[in-house]
Amino acid sequence: MRMRKKKYLDERLAQCDNIIKLFSDDRNFQTAIEKKEYINLTELFGNSNPVVLEIGCGKGKFACELAKRNPDINILAMEKVANVIVAASENAKSENLKNVKFLHGGAEYLEKFIEPESIERIYLNFSCPYPKNSYANHRLTNTRFLKSYAVILKKGAEIHQKTDNMHFFEYSIEQYSDFGFTIKNISLDLHNSSFEGNIETEYEHRFASQGFPIYRLEAYLK
Amino acid sequence: MRMRKKKYLDERLAQCDNIIKLFSDDRNFQTAIEKKEYINLTELFGNSNPVVLEIGCGKGKFACELAKRNPDINILAMEKVANVIVAASENAKSENLKNVKFLHGGAEYLEKFIEPESIERIYLNFSCPYPKNSYANHRLTNTRFLKSYAVILKKGAEIHQKTDNMHFFEYSIEQYSDFGFTIKNISLDLHNSSFEGNIETEYEHRFASQGFPIYRLEAYLK
Repeated sequence: MRMRKKKYLDERLAQCDNIIKLFSDDRNFQTAIEKKEYINLTELFGNSNPVVLEIGCGKGKFACELAKRNPDINILAMEKVANVIVAASENAKSENLKNVKFLHGGAEYLEKFIEPESIERIYLNFSCPYPKNSYANHRLTNTRFLKSYAVILKKGAEIHQKTDNMHFFEYSIEQYSDFGFTIKNISLDLHNSSFEGNIETEYEHRFASQGFPIYRLEAYLK
Repeated sequence: MRMRKKKYLDERLAQCDNIIKLFSDDRNFQTAIEKKEYINLTELFGNSNPVVLEIGCGKGKFACELAKRNPDINILAMEKVANVIVAASENAKSENLKNVKFLHGGAEYLEKFIEPESIERIYLNFSCPYPKNSYANHRLTNTRFLKSYAVILKKGAEIHQKTDNMHFFEYSIEQYSDFGFTIKNISLDLHNSSFEGNIETEYEHRFASQGFPIYRLEAYLK
């Protein structure tokens, strides 16, 4: 079943001045593609603090909490689904968070908009596992995405991934490894580990409180 | 508590002509070290079939089953504990298995006895996890051992590891990855996966039948 379009979605989206729309019918998108112009991150955030990227931010709980805890870091939070990103954007605005901005679009275009070696860290939190093998190339740890991440990440910068899906986590380890990423700080049961400073997503909280393990790792290119 | 020395252990060991003793008080050991002589695997097995190595074979159930299923492969099974390897050796003899031989000694000497690029595969089955961090360099996936494996393995040959210990598995993934091994066919719950042809060890059977997950992976150098 398709989610019903939220009331006044277009009006609400239009009012979210912290969202950059990255779809093919959008002017910014076309301009960027044609002129090969990257988003000017310094201009966007009004400073040159390090920029981290969350891909698939959902309603933005993680991104907003990260922004609050780290006022000296800028957070770019990307999400495909309009209904969801508008809520994330409104949450950030209601909390008056200046260091979180949203990208409305799909990760397949990252390389078109984000300057090479400009991102300090990528967060993948509970990305859709696409359990069917025929959809494996939609998984955000598929080689085609890793290739983009390798381009936009600064040298030695890390991807931090969490998931509750065992097979997706197995797949991700294999994809990182095959691509040449080094894996560190892996946890096969995050909530019963010694890891400190975890920011729980809504989904994570629900899932972990039922006693299921949360998997986490960090990956970087040497 | 120290395990009591089994009755007639020395006599039994002496009768096991399929065991090569690799301890510093032994003539073979000294000769090999001094003359830099590797074990002649072709001579040992009486043929030049591929040789695989199990490190920490316990009572030899896995090695013997592997030998039975694969008559065209030679199995070198290594074990430190005399009480245990003598039982493994006797089992192999009682089944008249010609393609399994035993090394009585520790993995730290592998490079001294095994010719570089001569091993087709290494099996690490339920190796001691040494849970205390101060003993991490005793773990069989510690870098110092991986370094030896990299030397004795044929180009592109794989390490196949199984364990029930989550933290040891996390540690192992990090060690392989940091060393440059590529990880593939990882399973975080082997007995509920699609993996076929698994040879259960005694320990594995007991542990898995209690419902605990078995972790497994393959690692190789590109």
